[in-house]
Amino acid sequence: MRVAIAGYSTTRFSLNDVPIENVLTDAMRMIFENAPNLEQKDIDTVLVSTNENRKYLGAVLAEMGGISPKIAHNVESLCNSGTNALVSAFSYITSGLADVALVVGAERFDSPGQVLDWDITRGEYNHPIFWASMFAKAHKRKYGTTDEQIAKVSAINHANAKSNPNAYVSKNYTLEEIMNSKKITEDLRLLDCSRPCTGGAGVLLVSENIAKKITDLPVWVSGIGHRTISASFAKNDLTTLESTKDAANQALVMAEVSTEQIDVLEVHDAFSICEIMILEDIGIVEKGDGGKYTSELYSTASKKVNPRGGLIGSGHPLGATGLAQVAEIAQQLQQKAGKRQVEGAKIGLVHNMSAAATSSTVLVLSS
Amino acid sequence: MRVAIAGYSTTRFSLNDVPIENVLTDAMRMIFENAPNLEQKDIDTVLVSTNENRKYLGAVLAEMGGISPKIAHNVESLCNSGTNALVSAFSYITSGLADVALVVGAERFDSPGQVLDWDITRGEYNHPIFWASMFAKAHKRKYGTTDEQIAKVSAINHANAKSNPNAYVSKNYTLEEIMNSKKITEDLRLLDCSRPCTGGAGVLLVSENIAKKITDLPVWVSGIGHRTISASFAKNDLTTLESTKDAANQALVMAEVSTEQIDVLEVHDAFSICEIMILEDIGIVEKGDGGKYTSELYSTASKKVNPRGGLIGSGHPLGATGLAQVAEIAQQLQQKAGKRQVEGAKIGLVHNMSAAATSSTVLVLSS
Repeated sequence: MRVAIAGYSTTRFSLNDVPIENVLTDAMRMIFENAPNLEQKDIDTVLVSTNENRKYLGAVLAEMGGISPKIAHNVESLCNSGTNALVSAFSYITSGLADVALVVGAERFDSPGQVLDWDITRGEYNHPIFWASMFAKAHKRKYGTTDEQIAKVSAINHANAKSNPNAYVSKNYTLEEIMNSKKITEDLRLLDCSRPCTGGAGVLLVSENIAKKITDLPVWVSGIGHRTISASFAKNDLTTLESTKDAANQALVMAEVSTEQIDVLEVHDAFSICEIMILEDIGIVEKGDGGKYTSELYSTASKKVNPRGGLIGSGHPLGATGLAQVAEIAQQLQQKAGKRQVEGAKIGLVHNMSAAATSSTVLVLSS
Repeated sequence: MRVAIAGYSTTRFSLNDVPIENVLTDAMRMIFENAPNLEQKDIDTVLVSTNENRKYLGAVLAEMGGISPKIAHNVESLCNSGTNALVSAFSYITSGLADVALVVGAERFDSPGQVLDWDITRGEYNHPIFWASMFAKAHKRKYGTTDEQIAKVSAINHANAKSNPNAYVSKNYTLEEIMNSKKITEDLRLLDCSRPCTGGAGVLLVSENIAKKITDLPVWVSGIGHRTISASFAKNDLTTLESTKDAANQALVMAEVSTEQIDVLEVHDAFSICEIMILEDIGIVEKGDGGKYTSELYSTASKKVNPRGGLIGSGHPLGATGLAQVAEIAQQLQQKAGKRQVEGAKIGLVHNMSAAATSSTVLVLSS
């Protein structure tokens, strides 16, 4: 049984100080607006993804939407909550327990998911930037990756975000501005970081036989990969995101797709160094060549990475991020991405991770 | 593909003031102790169910157990978080994305899930007892249910809990003591309420082909029903738990089982009136006869209800409750429930609900 994306939405990312319920409702409303044949009674699953401390948001969102689903709950896994919820919805459909699942993610700018409080035993490492800095240092040492290459990722994502009307940041930065921005750690600067913000995104997942009722342009979830690994500094090679490597491999095998066939990617650039490593670990470029690829080849590469500006350019509302990534790829595969359309994109990949890549989800989508 | 329960655990329910991670780890450890053939590398899914505000507990629990699963996250839906997580695990297995899922629920006595803060607009109704009181009043008016019948539910569950070594309460109460306990509302007394406590429970769910490696006595998840409904006072008939009715019907149809065939039930007696209504809405007894059934017929009934003492006798650690119910029924169907064994039990039912029955999960298990 195939599962289709039959609708999607992204709110404007901002610093709006509004209740999480409002953000969720906005993202849900947009799904209905974009799917005129969708009726409330069609929906049998409502999954929410957020790190907010509010409870019972699956059922609350359902009620706010006039929906009486079978299944409703919240899924939380820090920054990849969104794709975890999406894969749950996929499973509900393929298992036969559901047919139409509304998955909505949202976060506020002050989300409690921004600090790794489970890692408090390691002192300062409770903010993810310290992890990312260790990655940066290790990658520089082993592969000669430069500060300029790292900064280039940020410059490109900010530039891409200019054609994304929902992006939180809408400003170009020169390489110089990025490299001269405030040093947060020895190896990463302020403009190397994605920014917390308020935002929501939604995806409507449906079984194959329902898809044609809702959309003429179904996008198929054709590959899924997941991996959770230890956070041990001792066990992990800090130049490789093992969870990403494994999740990508699973997803590509399931989809029967090679990296060459991928036209467009959304990858989890929580920090600019991450994008370099992710592209290596997915297998888009040889290990160690990520910095070169992103800085020299992006403009000429046959694949487009983070067309909406990634997390650095668009903003990073944790529970919404994975679903906003899926929404972007679905829009690209429907050839509806307007100014940022990757011409003729047929196969796309979403990479969403949490907490210094201690877990990764990779999805392959196809038109 | 059939899905089996191949292991389960319940910690002692108490008022222990310990971190949620400890409770989760205890419940996980017991699963391993009871399944000597289970190896960490077998487990590809770790789902946690809790209302605690701590984040990333799926991955954190996996790491504490030396497990590197594919899928790990937290599932939250107030009091039926546990069965929501279990059904997610079921779906992951039937969808082919996983084979062995460890589902662990836990809660602390001071859980933030005890107050319905989404219902604050209705003033005092932010504590579930006010809902339960409205149910009690409506049921008394329409069906002549008496205070004594309601109190009897509490007396029986406290008595049952005496043979449950993990129960939080271990004390018999006379009908008089219950009826004379502190009046919280016009229609419900202190001893009509389940008690918040600290506790954990776990269930190991596996695909059919793996089951025999782990256990000689698999228990099968043969029926699943879910429903989420509006919390509207205007729409809902307060003498019927509509979500329970629908979820039970779905589960029984899926399992191809009639209510007559059920030998033992775990039902969500958050308040004593709930047990009366649930037994009616599942279809164990005619609508309106629940009070009579529970007070007069329990001792002679062919079915056993809440052998471990229900939520009133065992305690109610929200995120653990649904899984503790499943653990109890699995133990009963394995004929391993010791002093509280229901002789020859072959088919059991679990009923777990949230927030004044605005959502219910019903599972049918069979040996």
